[in-house]
Amino acid sequence: MEPFALKNALSRVQETCPLVHCITNYVTVNDCANALLGVGASPIMSDEPLDVEDITSICGGLVLNIGTLNVATIAGMRAAAARATALGHPIVLDPVGAGASALRTETASELLDEYGVRVVRGNMSEVKAVSGASASTRGVDVDPADAVTDASLLEAAAFAKDVAARTGCVVAITGATDVVADAGRAFAVRNGSSLMGKITGTGCMLSAITGAFAVANEEALLEGVLAAVACMGVAGQLAAARMEGPDGTGSFRTYLLDALSTMDGDILEAKAAIEEIQEA
Amino acid sequence: MEPFALKNALSRVQETCPLVHCITNYVTVNDCANALLGVGASPIMSDEPLDVEDITSICGGLVLNIGTLNVATIAGMRAAAARATALGHPIVLDPVGAGASALRTETASELLDEYGVRVVRGNMSEVKAVSGASASTRGVDVDPADAVTDASLLEAAAFAKDVAARTGCVVAITGATDVVADAGRAFAVRNGSSLMGKITGTGCMLSAITGAFAVANEEALLEGVLAAVACMGVAGQLAAARMEGPDGTGSFRTYLLDALSTMDGDILEAKAAIEEIQEA
Amino acid sequence: MEPFALKNALSRVQETCPLVHCITNYVTVNDCANALLGVGASPIMSDEPLDVEDITSICGGLVLNIGTLNVATIAGMRAAAARATALGHPIVLDPVGAGASALRTETASELLDEYGVRVVRGNMSEVKAVSGASASTRGVDVDPADAVTDASLLEAAAFAKDVAARTGCVVAITGATDVVADAGRAFAVRNGSSLMGKITGTGCMLSAITGAFAVANEEALLEGVLAAVACMGVAGQLAAARMEGPDGTGSFRTYLLDALSTMDGDILEAKAAIEEIQEA
Repeated sequence: MEPFALKNALSRVQETCPLVHCITNYVTVNDCANALLGVGASPIMSDEPLDVEDITSICGGLVLNIGTLNVATIAGMRAAAARATALGHPIVLDPVGAGASALRTETASELLDEYGVRVVRGNMSEVKAVSGASASTRGVDVDPADAVTDASLLEAAAFAKDVAARTGCVVAITGATDVVADAGRAFAVRNGSSLMGKITGTGCMLSAITGAFAVANEEALLEGVLAAVACMGVAGQLAAARMEGPDGTGSFRTYLLDALSTMDGDILEAKAAIEEIQEA
Repeated sequence: MEPFALKNALSRVQETCPLVHCITNYVTVNDCANALLGVGASPIMSDEPLDVEDITSICGGLVLNIGTLNVATIAGMRAAAARATALGHPIVLDPVGAGASALRTETASELLDEYGVRVVRGNMSEVKAVSGASASTRGVDVDPADAVTDASLLEAAAFAKDVAARTGCVVAITGATDVVADAGRAFAVRNGSSLMGKITGTGCMLSAITGAFAVANEEALLEGVLAAVACMGVAGQLAAARMEGPDGTGSFRTYLLDALSTMDGDILEAKAAIEEIQEA
Repeated sequence: MEPFALKNALSRVQETCPLVHCITNYVTVNDCANALLGVGASPIMSDEPLDVEDITSICGGLVLNIGTLNVATIAGMRAAAARATALGHPIVLDPVGAGASALRTETASELLDEYGVRVVRGNMSEVKAVSGASASTRGVDVDPADAVTDASLLEAAAFAKDVAARTGCVVAITGATDVVADAGRAFAVRNGSSLMGKITGTGCMLSAITGAFAVANEEALLEGVLAAVACMGVAGQLAAARMEGPDGTGSFRTYLLDALSTMDGDILEAKAAIEEIQEA
């Protein structure tokens, strides 16, 4: 699988401009739309059950983010997911806050079980919750006890591969160190910046662009997801490097979208810190 | 009608600070609110059917944007439109994604047919769909086959005038070249920047400020809409001129709001590139 | 009570990182989330009635903002408020647009009357409306006739203390001069910038961070609210001081979040302009 050809994965997004249908929370939806446009894709948001089937039909992929789910949008997610599954479109699930409420855990689990979800992207607490492993969450943040560290990396990789095997998904567990796995292989991505946790939406944006990378790289889905994860992480680093003087999180958010929208494939490959996690 | 008195049209917005009721999509709603504040107007967002009649009654105009329509907000749009029509308030319709789904096409068409809509602002695919002309759309983007070019400008002008004549609206079809028409005259506006299509919300923001310009310039609606279209286009050019170094779409979005909120009437008139489209 | 120990109030937020459940409007929700993260708290947004009880249970406080209320989110607010009241969590109410519609006035009044609201934060028109005093509002802006001036400061202080006494809340009436009071004492806060009224969301952001300050400073609620109000005002001044050249409201919004997210306790105390309003 080496080299990861991150550059090619990004180029395929930019060249094919995939239409991505997003049913996503209203907190970060603007950032998700701009992130998709930034990497060269095109977003469409629609959550009304009477609207989503038509919309998803003209798209290449679907992103489901339960960050501000409600009974109407859950129905919209189900209708969209059913249609996307029937059409063979890749579906990305972001189980925001799974584990924090019964409704979130159940909704995410049902979406994962009943439709053709191809990628799950969340923090460790959320992925544990949605996969039925015991977990607690601190709201929409990872439980500190779940954070992936060097000490827990092998365990995290084994868990991610297990979830991938059971669900048939590529699993992206993001945090200070990201773990991306399918049933056979797991990788650590050591990019990003601690500032990314100081603004809302970096996880949601990653899930959104993962939808674009999944559509454009459907034949090599693991590589596509790795490229999306690395792209967001490198963008975070580039944004952090611009911080100066009185800059705070407002500027960081702007710089992050700047970096996503000007991402160069060569820089992405040069800065991406991806390594396969080998079992002990 | 010459000179367009763009400066006066803008001044009337700034001096009267029109209250504009927006029922608009949750993707770009923050940008719409800030765009309205930027040009000197005041936004109010309300979509609950039980709330909209009171709200629209205290406003001067109404903007209906179907970008993330749902059954509840459609009911809100209808109730607000009925009241605004009864009160004689100008209504601006932005048929986001008309042609992309049956619900969007039908909703936009019904709003246009049943209430006193005074301005329609969309891309060519959307305006075709809402006016009953055959059209396809690429989601919320214009179908490339529909894009207005120099070669198709006369045809676009004739179409816009025909829609205006049939609906009694001022029609603003925006794209690389914008076409603004009433039943009698059509104009091309050659402002803007290609960067405007790389962020979400420039069309929505234009529709929002068009609501303010329509309220403040109701006696000269065509000129008011032309001023709004030129204002957004010139703001886009001013924003694009600030781009440097690592700036990307995050910075462009900031610069665009900066330019809108500091727009000078003399600069607007100096930079506006408006010409009447004369029939062959 | 002197000194106000604003620095300590801020430190308590930063050190305890309170989880704050927000049911807030979709116009400014992203700004509210980033404002909370900026001051060191953690936001969770959830408005679905089936979800809010679980979510509010894991949080420390609740912020209710009726800016884009609808029948579903009103039910969510009620369910969340009931649970938060039962758990003794501080509740902050932002009655956006109270007075502008019957639904808003009634909803805000009922939330205030029926649940354990601890802080009300609004402009004078809104606070008058929610407390049953006669009032008019100009949409979501204060009615000019209601604006707090030096001439009306004593009257405003007496009104705020009266509302506080009747409701058991700390009352924060914000405008060019802010008035913060409990039943016994009232304070004027003379911070902020006129630019804050040129962007959407500064009031909403203040209400959001007030939730965090209320959780972290529950034993000294008046001081906590004063610290939140001063923090937002000083952030506005710091942001205004960075404006230069072509900067407009887009940059100001970025600078405001920058200032909130880098607020230093010593600078906050040095710049805060708080004085007790003594009865004549």
